[in-house]
Order: sequence, then structure tokens, then C-alpha cells
Amino acid sequence: MSREQREAIRQFRASSPLDLGGAVHEQRALFEQLLSHHPVPEDVIVTEAHYDTIPGLLVELAEEPCVGTVLYFHGGAYVFGSARSSLGIVADLARRSQTRVITIDYRLAPEHPAPAATDDAVRAYRALIASGVDPQRVAVAGESAGGGVALGLLAALSAADEPMPAAALLFSPWVDLTLSGDSMTVRAEADFIVNRTALERRVRDYLGDASAAEQHSPLFADLHGLPPTLIQVGSDEVLLDDSTRLAARLVAADVSVTLDVTAQATHVFQSFAASWDEADAAMTRAATFVRTMVKP
Amino acid sequence: MSREQREAIRQFRASSPLDLGGAVHEQRALFEQLLSHHPVPEDVIVTEAHYDTIPGLLVELAEEPCVGTVLYFHGGAYVFGSARSSLGIVADLARRSQTRVITIDYRLAPEHPAPAATDDAVRAYRALIASGVDPQRVAVAGESAGGGVALGLLAALSAADEPMPAAALLFSPWVDLTLSGDSMTVRAEADFIVNRTALERRVRDYLGDASAAEQHSPLFADLHGLPPTLIQVGSDEVLLDDSTRLAARLVAADVSVTLDVTAQATHVFQSFAASWDEADAAMTRAATFVRTMVKP
Repeated sequence: MSREQREAIRQFRASSPLDLGGAVHEQRALFEQLLSHHPVPEDVIVTEAHYDTIPGLLVELAEEPCVGTVLYFHGGAYVFGSARSSLGIVADLARRSQTRVITIDYRLAPEHPAPAATDDAVRAYRALIASGVDPQRVAVAGESAGGGVALGLLAALSAADEPMPAAALLFSPWVDLTLSGDSMTVRAEADFIVNRTALERRVRDYLGDASAAEQHSPLFADLHGLPPTLIQVGSDEVLLDDSTRLAARLVAADVSVTLDVTAQATHVFQSFAASWDEADAAMTRAATFVRTMVKP
Repeated sequence: MSREQREAIRQFRASSPLDLGGAVHEQRALFEQLLSHHPVPEDVIVTEAHYDTIPGLLVELAEEPCVGTVLYFHGGAYVFGSARSSLGIVADLARRSQTRVITIDYRLAPEHPAPAATDDAVRAYRALIASGVDPQRVAVAGESAGGGVALGLLAALSAADEPMPAAALLFSPWVDLTLSGDSMTVRAEADFIVNRTALERRVRDYLGDASAAEQHSPLFADLHGLPPTLIQVGSDEVLLDDSTRLAARLVAADVSVTLDVTAQATHVFQSFAASWDEADAAMTRAATFVRTMVKP
């Protein structure tokens, strides 16, 4: 089945006029529209909230107690996306892992260039911990650029010697703004979601000056002291090597890490868990990881 | 707790006179003795059996139906170990995954040099499938050198275009007989189980002529077409890079692979699941993987 399922996703993506490398203000609505394909199930409760001054959405289960908290960062190449656009995958993660998930509206580029996104992530995390939540009952998570935000948050916590969350979950993280992975070319033809040209434009939006790309790439940060991390990625991704190199860097830093590569899968394929068997299986593994790590 | 648990394992290992680089005939009994620390629980049934002409042990659950079959290859650097010495970890895997496990006595070096071990693995697998077992209900698994045997089996099946099992599970696999991983030196001090000198001696036993080391290293085989593979390894292992490089090779071959690295863990630490929290957690993940992949 999975070949047909994958083809259906390809056609679904092709049916959208979204251009990830297009003009930000034109493309934002199309990005929201594309991600709204994933309906929010009726058995989750979504509440608007603020963490420090950062707005976000709190996603809880209507009928089951939650065992912990996930602080989630949406994708969108640092310029697109919102807490709301992440609700589909966030609600799915909440239900499967039986955790409450907080997804925040960190500031976006080009209006708010680096390190605004990571700064907001740090402030939201600190506010969550200051509210009395045990860091060992918290996981941080993110998809694509949001995976980079999550990793940047962890590196900042490590540098400041602040309490770490219990775990990190990264879906197809974009952690190298220098775009230096071999997969950027080797997987270019296979990737029907992301391409180098689009990423280059978004790097300019986020950094202004690309000479700061290495400095703002969490892949190259000091990663010692990070919590156990699960990285999921598809093999049909130009960002594949962001994940494989991140895993290698975490191993070198003596961090417990699981690199979970699904063959022939695409960027953040977990968002298609409802219609793609491999995505469903990956999401189950991700949820099991979160539930295991934040359990009381 | 885990630092104390790890130290207890270190002292347990140090209490044994086993020398992995010692004379084969002197050390075999010590190897068996060391591994017998892991008692076989009363709720498994162990039966002697043959697969083709290869002797083995069939491990089943006394009170629960099994959902599939694991063909397991014990460790011991190609010269030590037996189906019986693997019973502790095998019984644990059987119970947690609710699968029957067959662990075979492949022929050992130096009496039977390469490729005797892999040849026996291929014959046992073919006999299992010929008996009517659905390959999609089978996983292959192995620890240390047995991980290399399992990978060699899979490469042989791929080359011969024979039906693949549903999955592969590798605990600290030894897949590079050229011993060329950086971890062979970088992790030398941290690894209190395996060392380069011992491996060099065992390579000579297994290959006779070390010039054939690359040819007989499954790391360098064509790995296209392999089934989803879970590799578990500790970061305190000279064999760490056998796992990280194998994961990279599988990714390059478009195989779904999970590389699961536990920080500060040692060679085949899963065998200490009863007394080491991280080992218990890793074994649970391994069993979940097997059960998920071989389910009807």
C-alpha cells in the first residue's frame, strides 16, 4: 500500500500553489491552508495561553489525564507557520502519547530575524518551568525549522546550565543553515517538498547576513548535556543529512540518541499519519518515546 | 541509579578471568560461565532442534502464543559462545516481544573459518522458510559477532534475491573486521569489555589471512534491499562506529534504519536488563520493534 499512499501525498502537495521559496507575505496563507488538511480531532481541547509573553495553544485530552508536557515548535522555514498550523500533528502526538502539548507562536522572520525564534523558545520554556512544572516531566519537540528551534533551546539551556527537559523529539529537523549536507544535492530529486533554492531564500530572511549561518546553526553548537533525543527523518529529504550529522554530533557528545530513518519518506511525513502506514508507525514510535521519557 | 548500576556491571566483568584475546580453548569455558549469569526464566520452554543440519535451541513462551519467529545469532567474536550462552538475552527477548526465538550453534573459528558462520546462518534461515514459516513473520537478530552473522545473512539473501525477513535487530554488531572505526581508539579507554588487541587476534582466527578482512566484513557488502533494521549500541564501545557507519550505509542504501545509541552504555548492555535501568529500557524498545515488525 505504501507506494500508492506516498503518491497520493505527492499529488496532494502538488495540488497546492504553495512555493516555499516564494514571497513571504504571499505564501503564508497558502502554508496555513496546506497544513490545515489535518483536522483536529474532537477529543482534544485547545486553549489559548501565554508563556511569558509568548502566545501559544495548549492542547489537552478531553477524557484522559496527561502524563507530562511537550513544548512544541512548528515548522515553516522560520518565516511560515503558526501554533495553529501545527495543531494537526500536535493533537495526534498528544493523543498517542497522552501528554499535554503546548505549541507556541515564536516570532517569525523576516520581521524578526535570528535569534528571535530561539529567544522566544527559551522564554516560553523558562516560564513553563517557573510555573512549577517538573523539567523531568517535559519533552521539547519540533518539526523542520521548529526542530532547529528546539535544538537551539536545548543548547542555550546547556550553555546556561539550566534544568534540561527529559527528552527531545525532532521531526525532520533543519539544524544547518549553511546547507552543507550532501543530501542537499544527493536527495534533491527525491524530495518533492523542500528544495535548496527555497531554503537559501529563507536563510537570507532569517539571518539577513548569511555569514552568520554557522553561528546560528544549532548543529554546530556545543551539544554536551542534552537529554535523550529521538530524531525521525525520511530518506527522500534534502534535509536528511541534517539528521544524520546531528545524530553523529550527539553521539560524540555522549548524548543518548535514536536516529530513526524511514526509507522513501518525505519531509515531516508524520503529519500524514492518518493516510500513510509508515507515517502512522513512525508517529507511534515518537509517541511511545515521549510517553516513556516523561512518565511519572 | 544508573551510574551505580554500571559500576556493578564493571566489577562483575572484572571479577571474571575471561580474556577475550586469550587462547580459544582456555577461554571458551570462561565465556560460557560469564554469560550464564543471566538465568533462564521458568516461563520459557527451551527445546533442542535442528535447522537443516545446524543445531539450535527453540525458545518459546509456556503460557502465551507467539506472534512470530526471531532467528538469533549469539556473540563471542566468532570463536566463543553458543546457543546456550545466549539463552539469557534470548529468553528475555522472547518474553518481552512474545515471539519464539531460535538461537543456533553456527560453526566457530578457528576450527571453522570464514565464511562458515554465515553459511550456517543462511542454511538455517532457508530451512526455517522451507518449513513453511512466512518470512514476513520472521526477524533476524544478533549480538556482537552474531550481529555480523545476521548482517552477512541478509546481504547473502539480497545477493541471491531470496525472500527477506521482516526486520533485523542488532545489538552492538561487529561488522567491520578491518577494525577501522575511529571509536576503536576514541572509545578504547571507556570500553571495559572489548579491546582492539582481542579483536585482532579473533580476526586472525576467523579469517586466517587478514587480507580478506574487508571482503568478509558485512559493513562493506551491498546492503540494498535489506529489511527495516534496529541497531542498538552503547557509546562506551570500541565497536560504536561499526553501528554508526552501518546506519549510514543503510541510509545510503535506502533501507529504513533506527540507530539507537545509549550514552555510557557498554557492549551488549541489554544482557544486563535485569539490573541496569538503561539496559531494561533498551530491551523494551528492541522487543517492541520486533513485535511490531513481525505481527500478523
